[in-house]
Amino acid sequence: MSTGRLSSTQRALAILDCFTTDAPTLTLSQIARRLRQPVSSTHRQLQELTHWGALERDASGRYAIGLHLWEVGSLAPRSKSLREVSLPFLEDLYEATHQNVQVAVLDGDEVVYVERLFSHAATRIIADPGTRLPLHPTGVGRVLLAHSGTERINEVLRGPLQPYTEYTVVDPHQLRRELAAILRTGYAITDRQFELVSTSVAAPIRGPDQSVIAALSIIVPSRDGTAHGFVPAVVTAARRISRALGAQLKHPVAPARR
Amino acid sequence: MSTGRLSSTQRALAILDCFTTDAPTLTLSQIARRLRQPVSSTHRQLQELTHWGALERDASGRYAIGLHLWEVGSLAPRSKSLREVSLPFLEDLYEATHQNVQVAVLDGDEVVYVERLFSHAATRIIADPGTRLPLHPTGVGRVLLAHSGTERINEVLRGPLQPYTEYTVVDPHQLRRELAAILRTGYAITDRQFELVSTSVAAPIRGPDQSVIAALSIIVPSRDGTAHGFVPAVVTAARRISRALGAQLKHPVAPARR
Repeated sequence: MSTGRLSSTQRALAILDCFTTDAPTLTLSQIARRLRQPVSSTHRQLQELTHWGALERDASGRYAIGLHLWEVGSLAPRSKSLREVSLPFLEDLYEATHQNVQVAVLDGDEVVYVERLFSHAATRIIADPGTRLPLHPTGVGRVLLAHSGTERINEVLRGPLQPYTEYTVVDPHQLRRELAAILRTGYAITDRQFELVSTSVAAPIRGPDQSVIAALSIIVPSRDGTAHGFVPAVVTAARRISRALGAQLKHPVAPARR
Repeated sequence: MSTGRLSSTQRALAILDCFTTDAPTLTLSQIARRLRQPVSSTHRQLQELTHWGALERDASGRYAIGLHLWEVGSLAPRSKSLREVSLPFLEDLYEATHQNVQVAVLDGDEVVYVERLFSHAATRIIADPGTRLPLHPTGVGRVLLAHSGTERINEVLRGPLQPYTEYTVVDPHQLRRELAAILRTGYAITDRQFELVSTSVAAPIRGPDQSVIAALSIIVPSRDGTAHGFVPAVVTAARRISRALGAQLKHPVAPARR
């Protein structure tokens, strides 16, 4: 990343982008190297960001994202209102099933998870809030892609489509049929598409203008072969969240077995 | 707020601080007025922030905090690790009680809520993630204050201590006795201190170095008078979270009735 021609604001934002799930803490010299900036000017800007609370320093002097940035970020309406409205429904679904349940939105050509509940015992967690995953191998991703219009579907199907397991569907024609089935049935089941251990059952969440704004999914162990049994609960919860968000669901589609 | 002498980075951060729970969306001119900056230069900086995803524009052209800022903020270790570790325990506690449960940390002289579960039916929500509340009238605040050392306790007790209800303890001497009792018993009960409808039962969460890094609380309706019955469950859950975070709890204190 060359940041020579960036404005001061853009450089500050580039500093924030240095931090990732895999690199949650960084030293001054690591940040300066990533930005290809002198240590001295990087240090000045790190001080400004730390003073405001966008960054924090740990006991060893390494920088990390600060609590105040998290606070301000928590105001993001696309995440906040959806989390607030969906949480009680996620809790009901979790309590009835004891499986991982999550809500995600489309951003660019990826899904971003905004809320999740998981148990000690359930399939291991793959998606913390803020995690991004690709569209084609995830249940929420396929639901969001299916409702995102021909243009984006064509773009995603042009690939490349990465296989994550031996079962991941990467054939554009088969994927197109799967997406059409999602629109027809009102839900998606993705079996061992992203991880060999898990199957996802996902359904769309609609906003006040009836458009699909998010997707809800439950992750169940693939070995159980019980995914279909979760369809009514997932579709019902997604419809309840949609209604709570103000969607008028005029044409209910009964989920049918495929 | 006068931002005339601020650096470009500081002005960008000041823009982010314009957004609050009460003002989640703002127009260009509202932001320029708050910053006391010309509309033209404010507009340029809003474009940079929007391009990166720190801000987003809604259908009416108003600005709001963007999804990418929320994503990056979600990496904040003080929030993330605590949320990840505590969530399954919060779920167990929620499932056993069906009351609002939450985890908060101390930041300055306030508590910041980092995770919460709530039901459709429970007492109304007062603390979304990212919400700040004062220390003296909240259960988590009193627990965190009690463990924050003499210097901070003296500073907070010097006041001013705002009464939120007719029951809020604002007498420094009585508050000091309450804080001492929290250290002795291992939990806090704050009855109608912040809202007339709710009572909080709170207990400390310890980190790997045994210091108190957060507090767990359950909010129950005050009219039920059942708060004491929740003490064992809250203390147990807080201890379990502490152990999961790496705390060595060598000297267990049995919660005693006050």
